[in-house]
Amino acid sequence: VKLYSTPPPPPNPRRVRIFLAEKGVTIPIVNLEPVRGETKTPEFLARNSLGQLPVLELDDGTCISESLAICRYLERIYPDPPLFGSGPIEEAWVDMWTRRLEFQLWVHVGSYWRHLHPFGVREGVPRHADLGEMALRDYDKALEWLDGELAGRDYLAIDSFSVADICLLTTLDFADWAGLKVPERLINLSRWHERVSVRPSATA
Amino acid sequence: VKLYSTPPPPPNPRRVRIFLAEKGVTIPIVNLEPVRGETKTPEFLARNSLGQLPVLELDDGTCISESLAICRYLERIYPDPPLFGSGPIEEAWVDMWTRRLEFQLWVHVGSYWRHLHPFGVREGVPRHADLGEMALRDYDKALEWLDGELAGRDYLAIDSFSVADICLLTTLDFADWAGLKVPERLINLSRWHERVSVRPSATA
Repeated sequence: VKLYSTPPPPPNPRRVRIFLAEKGVTIPIVNLEPVRGETKTPEFLARNSLGQLPVLELDDGTCISESLAICRYLERIYPDPPLFGSGPIEEAWVDMWTRRLEFQLWVHVGSYWRHLHPFGVREGVPRHADLGEMALRDYDKALEWLDGELAGRDYLAIDSFSVADICLLTTLDFADWAGLKVPERLINLSRWHERVSVRPSATA
Repeated sequence: VKLYSTPPPPPNPRRVRIFLAEKGVTIPIVNLEPVRGETKTPEFLARNSLGQLPVLELDDGTCISESLAICRYLERIYPDPPLFGSGPIEEAWVDMWTRRLEFQLWVHVGSYWRHLHPFGVREGVPRHADLGEMALRDYDKALEWLDGELAGRDYLAIDSFSVADICLLTTLDFADWAGLKVPERLINLSRWHERVSVRPSATA
């Protein structure tokens, strides 16, 4: 088994690396450079027709892409500690929160990147500053909502650390790298960020 | 237990209704009208702080939102027939495909809706026709990619009908309602669409 990944800052490959660190599992990592076209070669497109990272390749050549799908596979193979929740309700809540993070938080980071960030320029893709500005406002609103949801809670989805916390951490850290900070007045969110950032897995 | 939903055309509540129909399970449905503000009342926001549908409410008041999280809960309670795959690899593939559909297909329908569709106008939200036009092109490209992926396959993610097929069906049907058709030349995709549309659950 091996993991095709890429070094920071992209958040999705980091999700899987943190997940593996939390499980205490080490697997060989092959780092590719998307900017050099290494994910658009015929060999790599046979592993993931979208040419995206990360991809987990099993020993028989079976490939799984999409960070959370890879994590779900790893959860079945290495069940301890459980990171997708235990029992039907916890599992649903972890799922609910990973989806909320994608659609309520990550989309705004993506839109800001695409419309305003200097590295977001792509040939033939129009940029509109008003949408980038709106994304900044929507990102702040989403952080505020998350701060409220985290009141009195140590972790986002359930009482223990889960893959939802991994998704939030990787999103906030990437956004921070891109220039979007968590306002200090959001105390619950800031404390949560400190709490998960001191876990050894956070360096992955 | 009860399901807060809304009548067609929104695709996400339909996902859960189709899922229930495939399981042969009937639960009480409470239909709400978002356009009348029925999902922004204090009572409903206590069930889902995002004020979105669908929401599954259990008998003890526990609430689960996000269509796929609800389906995952229902899968645990009603395991037959399995709709999230059987075994670690199938489960990962179903997950991979639901995510691919959200990020490679649905996003373009959403962007078209937001920037070009007459019903997509929202006060204070800028619209840019060039982004709507790009979304139309990207949607067609995504359909073409899906058509290739479906070559020689009856269902999208695994050899049997899964929740990934439900996500694709609800996306295509909503897009069709919004004016985005599947080109007839995409034979694999058109045949897949006929195949799943004749299932009794498709009327849900």
